[in-house]
Amino acid sequence: MAGTVVVGLDIGGTSTRAAALTLDGERLGTGRAGGGNPTSHGADRAATELLTALRGALTGLDPTRVRAGAIGLAGAGRLLADPAGRDAFDRAWHDAGLRCPYTVHGDALVAYASGTPAPEGTVLIAGTGAIAAEVRDLRLDRVADGHGWLLGDAGSGFWLGREAVRRLLADLDSGRAPGTLGRQVLTDLLGTPDVAPRPRNTVDTVIQAVTRRPPVDLARLAPRVVDAAVAGEPAASALIAEAAGHLTESVSRIRPAGATGPLVLGGGLLTGDTPLAAAVRAEASRRWPDAPLRSAGDGAAAAAWLAARELPEVDDPTALHTRLVPPSA
Amino acid sequence: MAGTVVVGLDIGGTSTRAAALTLDGERLGTGRAGGGNPTSHGADRAATELLTALRGALTGLDPTRVRAGAIGLAGAGRLLADPAGRDAFDRAWHDAGLRCPYTVHGDALVAYASGTPAPEGTVLIAGTGAIAAEVRDLRLDRVADGHGWLLGDAGSGFWLGREAVRRLLADLDSGRAPGTLGRQVLTDLLGTPDVAPRPRNTVDTVIQAVTRRPPVDLARLAPRVVDAAVAGEPAASALIAEAAGHLTESVSRIRPAGATGPLVLGGGLLTGDTPLAAAVRAEASRRWPDAPLRSAGDGAAAAAWLAARELPEVDDPTALHTRLVPPSA
Repeated sequence: MAGTVVVGLDIGGTSTRAAALTLDGERLGTGRAGGGNPTSHGADRAATELLTALRGALTGLDPTRVRAGAIGLAGAGRLLADPAGRDAFDRAWHDAGLRCPYTVHGDALVAYASGTPAPEGTVLIAGTGAIAAEVRDLRLDRVADGHGWLLGDAGSGFWLGREAVRRLLADLDSGRAPGTLGRQVLTDLLGTPDVAPRPRNTVDTVIQAVTRRPPVDLARLAPRVVDAAVAGEPAASALIAEAAGHLTESVSRIRPAGATGPLVLGGGLLTGDTPLAAAVRAEASRRWPDAPLRSAGDGAAAAAWLAARELPEVDDPTALHTRLVPPSA
Repeated sequence: MAGTVVVGLDIGGTSTRAAALTLDGERLGTGRAGGGNPTSHGADRAATELLTALRGALTGLDPTRVRAGAIGLAGAGRLLADPAGRDAFDRAWHDAGLRCPYTVHGDALVAYASGTPAPEGTVLIAGTGAIAAEVRDLRLDRVADGHGWLLGDAGSGFWLGREAVRRLLADLDSGRAPGTLGRQVLTDLLGTPDVAPRPRNTVDTVIQAVTRRPPVDLARLAPRVVDAAVAGEPAASALIAEAAGHLTESVSRIRPAGATGPLVLGGGLLTGDTPLAAAVRAEASRRWPDAPLRSAGDGAAAAAWLAARELPEVDDPTALHTRLVPPSA
C-alpha cells in the first residue's frame, strides 16, 4: 500500500495546484501552474496548465506508480459535456505519462473535501463569486447561488466591491464627504481620494473607471472593504454584516432542516481570519448549532483523497483523509 | 405675438418628438422620428432623427417664423462637450431651414418642465434607468443615481427585471415552485413556465438566456412585475415597494430640507396609473408633505416652453406654460 501513489489537482481561476501523495500521506511532489478555469480560459488553456502542474508534481517520480487521480475545477459539468474539452484533458493526462483513470469534480466538492471527510454536509464558498452546495455521499447535490455577478454571487468579493462603490456614489450624491473606505476606493479607481468641486464630476469619473473594465474586476476592491472593517469603519462593517447575511441565506436555501453534517467555509473571503469569516461563523453557529464548522484547506490533496478512496486497498477513507489532507487553520 | 413660433424636441432612446407651437398655444405641427440618444446611438444618428422630427413639425410652415428652439436629450452635457456632435446638430437645425438659435437641455430638465413651470423643484424619473435631480432656476442642479445598471439605477425597470429573475432563481435554489411572476419570467426567457426535473438545469438555462443579451435588456421584464403586482401577487408587490423605497431614497439624497417646490414624476414606470407610481406617490407624500406631486407630460412642448420663455415678449412664463404644455393625467 505504501507504494501506491495518487495525484490530485485543484484548477482555479488564478492558479492550478497539483499534489502527488502516497496513501501513507507522504507528499512526493507538488506542482503549480497558472489559472485554468475552462469556462473562462477555454479547455485547451486549462489542459496546458494542468499538464504543467502535473509535471511539477511528478518530477522524479515514475508516473506508472500513480494508481488514481482526480481533478477539481469550476465548470466541471460543462467540461465533461464537451467532447473537445474532455479530449484536451485526456491528452494532457496522457502526456504527463499517467496511465490510470481520473475523475473530474466540481471545485465546490473539492473545497468541501478539503475541510472534512464526512460524506454529508454543506459547503459555502466566497471568493470573487459565491456559491453554497449540499453534499450527499460525497457528491454535489443541491446548489444555491453561484449565479454570476449579474444575477447573484450575493456576499461575494464582486458584491463587496460593487457595494463599496455604490456607497461611495451615494455619499457623493448626498454631498457627504467619503469616509475611509470611500477615500480608499477613490484612490484605487482614480489615483486620488480628492472629490471634485462639483461632486457629480467625481461620480462620472468613478462610473467611467468602473465600466472601462470587466464588471467582475470590482472584486479587486473587496480587500479594501475587509481592511476597513478590520480597522473598524462602520460602513465597511455594515457591508461585511450584509454579505454574511446573504451568504448564510444561500446556505439556508439548501441545507436540510435537522442536518448535522459539517459546514465547510471556503474561498479567499472565508478561509483564514477574516471579518467576513467571523461574521459567517457567528451567524452559522446561531442558525445551525448542530453543524460543525470547518475551513477549506489544500484542494489538491483533497482531490487526491477523492481519487484514493475509490481504491480497493482503502478500507477507512476517514483515516486516509487524516493522513492525506493537512488540517487547515 | 401670435405670429411667433417656437419649436421643441424631446429626443429619447426609443423615439424623438418635435412640436411647433405659437405663443398662444396653437400647435402648428408635430413630428416623430426614431430614437436618437447621442450617447447610445452616436451624434450623427441623433442628428438624423432630429432632422426627420423637425421636418415633420415644420410641414407647411415657413421656418423663418420660428424664433426660438430647444432640444431635450439624455447625455446633453456630453453632446455639448463634443464639437463634432454639436456640429451635427447645428447642420440638422440649419437643414430644416431654421435660422434662430437653439438650446440643449438634459432630458431630466425637460421632464421636469413638462410637469411644472416652477423654477425650483425636484424631478424623479424611472424608466429603463432611474435618476433624481434637483432643479434651481430651471437648471439641473444636484443629481442622484442615474449611475447605470452596473452600479445604480435602483428601482428602475432594469432593477425590477433583474430582481424578478433573482427571486425566481432563489425559488429554484430552494426547491419552491415559482409563483405567477416567476412562471411569467420563465415563459419570457425560456418559452415555457415548466421547471426541469432537476431545477438547477432550469437555473442554468435562465442564467444563459439572460447573459446572452445586453444586461440592460432585463428591463423588458419590468412590465411583468407591474402586471403581477396589479394582479395582487405578493412577491411582485414586494418588489414594487422595494423599488419605490430606492427611488424615494434617491430623491432624499438631493432634495433640500424644507423645500416646497413640486416633485415631478417621469419615465414610463412613474407616469400613468402604475403601482410603482402609486407607491412612490404614497411614500413621497409621507416624506415630503409640502411637495406638490406632478406627473411629467409632453416633453416636446416643454422644450418649446423652455425656449419661448427667454423671448423678450414673454412676461409671464407661468401663464405661457399653461398655454403651451398640456396638463398630464
